[in-house]
Amino acid sequence: MPNYIFGNISGVNEGDSFVNREALRNAEIHLAPVAGIDGNPRVGATSIVLNGGYVDDLDLGDEIIYTGHGGNDANTNTQISDQSWDATGNKALLVSEMHGLPVRVTRGHKHKSPFSPSSGYEYGGLYSVVEHFQDRGVNGFLICRYRLIKQSPLSPKKIDIKKQLPKGNEEIKRTPTTILKIVRDTILSQSIKQHYDYTCQVCKIRISVREIGYAEAAHIKPLGLPHNGSDTPENIICLCPNHHVMFDKGIFTIADDFKLIGLNGSLIVKDGHNIDLKNLAYHRDNIFNQ
Amino acid sequence: MPNYIFGNISGVNEGDSFVNREALRNAEIHLAPVAGIDGNPRVGATSIVLNGGYVDDLDLGDEIIYTGHGGNDANTNTQISDQSWDATGNKALLVSEMHGLPVRVTRGHKHKSPFSPSSGYEYGGLYSVVEHFQDRGVNGFLICRYRLIKQSPLSPKKIDIKKQLPKGNEEIKRTPTTILKIVRDTILSQSIKQHYDYTCQVCKIRISVREIGYAEAAHIKPLGLPHNGSDTPENIICLCPNHHVMFDKGIFTIADDFKLIGLNGSLIVKDGHNIDLKNLAYHRDNIFNQ
Repeated sequence: MPNYIFGNISGVNEGDSFVNREALRNAEIHLAPVAGIDGNPRVGATSIVLNGGYVDDLDLGDEIIYTGHGGNDANTNTQISDQSWDATGNKALLVSEMHGLPVRVTRGHKHKSPFSPSSGYEYGGLYSVVEHFQDRGVNGFLICRYRLIKQSPLSPKKIDIKKQLPKGNEEIKRTPTTILKIVRDTILSQSIKQHYDYTCQVCKIRISVREIGYAEAAHIKPLGLPHNGSDTPENIICLCPNHHVMFDKGIFTIADDFKLIGLNGSLIVKDGHNIDLKNLAYHRDNIFNQ
Repeated sequence: MPNYIFGNISGVNEGDSFVNREALRNAEIHLAPVAGIDGNPRVGATSIVLNGGYVDDLDLGDEIIYTGHGGNDANTNTQISDQSWDATGNKALLVSEMHGLPVRVTRGHKHKSPFSPSSGYEYGGLYSVVEHFQDRGVNGFLICRYRLIKQSPLSPKKIDIKKQLPKGNEEIKRTPTTILKIVRDTILSQSIKQHYDYTCQVCKIRISVREIGYAEAAHIKPLGLPHNGSDTPENIICLCPNHHVMFDKGIFTIADDFKLIGLNGSLIVKDGHNIDLKNLAYHRDNIFNQ
């Protein structure tokens, strides 16, 4: 029975090379001999290998859009049927996302990206799974996709700061962490939050400190590749943190008449806020996890 | 009446130098002629200047512990009375934190840090206010403190990725964003979340996708300087995103008998989870915003 280790492997550094999958396995970076995703739905996914198996993968270095497994014909490297969120590796990656587990990423020479090695395999470090969504792949079948973000760019720079520290703080200890969630704000999301006075459009809760409200702007069609949602009021709603997580993870979605699907009730929409129904349709099709 | 501009100023780059406060003002980086915090409780804080005014400031470059204003004797640079969260600049920074506004940071030559210029002022870029807390300064009086985190290390690296993009994605557009919140996870926080089956210890909500639970681990005494809370089960509780925000922002706290203060009810504590009461006392004294 394999031993599932999450996070860094002692003695292996980012950029280390491995001649083949067996060497990767011996180093305990990726134990599965063939599968791209290592792990299971009970513990989560410990690691993935990108090696050109899926034409829909997209690698920006610090950010990866990764395709789950299933429905792919290994001989022709073509998608021949739908993928499922309940397939072992796909569900394992979902567990890693929901629980905030670090995933080791390795790139093989067959993976088409400027970050791939010219031969063998190269260990690329730890990533967080921050999003999952479904899509139609270039061959027309449903595919399960994940957005992974590299952990290290988020670590503080290593600098010699001992001299400037106040007494009693001679040492700075950093606890190794995984990114579970990054909530970002844009100039336009500010205006929508203000329009609703920082009150959740789903449950009306208004979280505040000294009357100063706290809410989060959720983009209905997500920003960034491959969604390319717009940062416009027509694509933004104002939610409390709980409903933001639930909306982004596809636990509920919104019908064209603003009735909630997956939750009771309706989205509260105030005058002056025009939501683009095409964005709601995108969320229902791609983000809502049925 | 001053015009409040948030975010970058066109034509001014990180690292740009200014001979004096007037030059900073003319460049629209920091409009207030003397005050360290520019802005007001209505719009938030647009910018701060660090110039050695407060002995409790701590500058790690990408991360700054900044002291609010008030109670400081300018002649002796000594704290002579308590600070207040309702003081103009302090409340403005609180607004920036709660609403997720970007804050321009400038360092002066009197500010003691390896990041300060040898003369005049240097623009240091955009930061997010991610935390506020109260503390006793080195002179024994209450001070209002803020943790600011630099935005740029969180931006993706600029790389030439056009060649590898699939058709129809020739251009990658990035929307300028502010970090509103980063939720991190540690190995130990995993075990506490698992112990509670990803159920909030305050409201019992369990957010899930395909039965996979989502919860957040809150450190009672925060990690990192100056708190130096430990990453141990005795310092961690399992919360839903709403109660996590409310706990971290000091909207409620917990008594030694686990009764909630600022909210109705009691913290649910399961057998096998021993919370260190010293950490609860720290949260009541330093994080709870009365």
